[in-house]
Amino acid sequence: MALLGIDIGGTKLAAAVFTEGGEIISREVILLGDLRGKDPGSLVTKTAGKPVTGAVEKPAADNVGKLIADTVREFLSREQPDGSRIRSIGISVPGIYRIKEGTVWAPNIPGWDNYPLLQEVQAVCAGLPVTIDSDRACYILGEMWKGNARGCSNAIFLSVGTGIGAGILADGRILRGANDIAGAIGWLALSKPFRDEYVSCGCFEHHASGEGIAKIAREYLAAGPEYAGTLRNKPAGEITSHDVFDAYSKGDPVAARVLQQCVEYWGMAVANLISLFNPEKIIMGGGVFGPAASLIPEITKEAARWAQPISSRLVSIEGSALGGDAGVYGAGWMAREKLGREA
Amino acid sequence: MALLGIDIGGTKLAAAVFTEGGEIISREVILLGDLRGKDPGSLVTKTAGKPVTGAVEKPAADNVGKLIADTVREFLSREQPDGSRIRSIGISVPGIYRIKEGTVWAPNIPGWDNYPLLQEVQAVCAGLPVTIDSDRACYILGEMWKGNARGCSNAIFLSVGTGIGAGILADGRILRGANDIAGAIGWLALSKPFRDEYVSCGCFEHHASGEGIAKIAREYLAAGPEYAGTLRNKPAGEITSHDVFDAYSKGDPVAARVLQQCVEYWGMAVANLISLFNPEKIIMGGGVFGPAASLIPEITKEAARWAQPISSRLVSIEGSALGGDAGVYGAGWMAREKLGREA
Repeated sequence: MALLGIDIGGTKLAAAVFTEGGEIISREVILLGDLRGKDPGSLVTKTAGKPVTGAVEKPAADNVGKLIADTVREFLSREQPDGSRIRSIGISVPGIYRIKEGTVWAPNIPGWDNYPLLQEVQAVCAGLPVTIDSDRACYILGEMWKGNARGCSNAIFLSVGTGIGAGILADGRILRGANDIAGAIGWLALSKPFRDEYVSCGCFEHHASGEGIAKIAREYLAAGPEYAGTLRNKPAGEITSHDVFDAYSKGDPVAARVLQQCVEYWGMAVANLISLFNPEKIIMGGGVFGPAASLIPEITKEAARWAQPISSRLVSIEGSALGGDAGVYGAGWMAREKLGREA
Repeated sequence: MALLGIDIGGTKLAAAVFTEGGEIISREVILLGDLRGKDPGSLVTKTAGKPVTGAVEKPAADNVGKLIADTVREFLSREQPDGSRIRSIGISVPGIYRIKEGTVWAPNIPGWDNYPLLQEVQAVCAGLPVTIDSDRACYILGEMWKGNARGCSNAIFLSVGTGIGAGILADGRILRGANDIAGAIGWLALSKPFRDEYVSCGCFEHHASGEGIAKIAREYLAAGPEYAGTLRNKPAGEITSHDVFDAYSKGDPVAARVLQQCVEYWGMAVANLISLFNPEKIIMGGGVFGPAASLIPEITKEAARWAQPISSRLVSIEGSALGGDAGVYGAGWMAREKLGREA
């Protein structure tokens, strides 16, 4: 038996075929930028491919749904190397999945406000079960299946990239909330007084997301004209979080100040997750962890100052074991789980 | 069919017999202070009584377990006014219930670090089902059954009294965490930098619990010797949150400053619950709400500034409908639910 996991990101689609035990049989990556002006079907290769690399462009997003359907159709038509056939499909989406409606809201795919993805995929998969959920849910499910949260029923994936979100596994189930938007941790209130900058993205995300790191660095540069370090090597407006991490690794004082502040915010947010959820594990992932993974011991120390002390002693705070593959593993796990429930 | 709900507080035990539909058939309140030097059995009246009132003393706590067992035995022996018999028992405890072990940690009952309450009650109830949980869990279950969270699957009871805790209902189930200590919201990190005062009780509880209100008022008085308002009517060390609310109602400026700061903290904490849990309702209860209930519109406004905006628009923030009875209703609901699951 084989399972198909698909992870849709803002810039690429990753697909992998899994065994029931979670081994990857084959995988493929398609850059959404390649969609511009092409028939999505032409992008799906006829053999199991290696990950595709190349320049990342904004997706021509009206075709994303068709690309997903074509990918599913193509994978279903293949016989797997081990002779098995795909029996169930899981999909991770970069936004919110409305489970009752089967629709997706994805801020980085234009037009996906209420996109009927479930229906579109079901139309091409001949009655096979299809399960969809948000990327943050898939991240923690992936880590639970094959990463650092194996064996956990209570674990949280704190995803810090351009934005910030949390996938929360509570008593063995994904926390959805009343409208499928639980885990919006970027909005965490961590620092009085309220500032206008929080209106569009939330306090925590303003200070400690990838975007936030770049933004705060720019603020510091504007406020300190005497500074002449490496962050002056490009126009302030073009500085990214990668530049800040790069400067930090070279001992830059502005970068150190920005990241020290981030450690404080990450620590407070982790502490709040510990006190509220009493989890076994908190997994730090997303693009920023990544380079910030070396700061996890400091974040753990900061969290321990604030959190409920018993929960704090019992939790383990770790980096992601799966990195960029957490979503596709989570999608694979959902495919397997759905089959288990229906069997 | 009748159900017995027992709510153990720091100072009293409340017991009520419910119909399956949640009507109270009879009820009784016993002050734990009355336990001093007496046989617990002598305190349980032989008829269904009215609530007992009187001076509140610290409990002679080594007898609390026996009092609960005697209460259960006595209630089981009674025929109810409607001729029915008790079929199931629920108990709310003022602390943490370790569900796997059947033991209780209750900070205000000396010796209850790991108290085997389940075993003790089971010994006197002839095979009837016994369900125990923390007071904060029972508060939200009570509100769900007969209060302001009726019909909700995602709702939170924010209990602000001497301390602060949250009972969290997520997708229809109480959030327990890995070690039954989820909901420790008094430890929420809301205000940098970390202060030594947060070590013993947490940042949120330091600033905005009943104890915190009194403490902050005392700090303000010490820092403002020129103030000569009503809060000077007793020694600063004896000021309670009730004094602060009383002064506030008379327009006292120090009390107004203390409570304005509390509104900010309560609003931020409520916002964090909204962003993380996407609940239908947040119920503000506990001894402080009570007098702070009139501040709920201001708290709602403050929360809306910080929280995830969609979740914020969809949530309703309300006072408790059950007040001091939320725990005993929750205990009654657990008794009913257990029976339903076993039927």
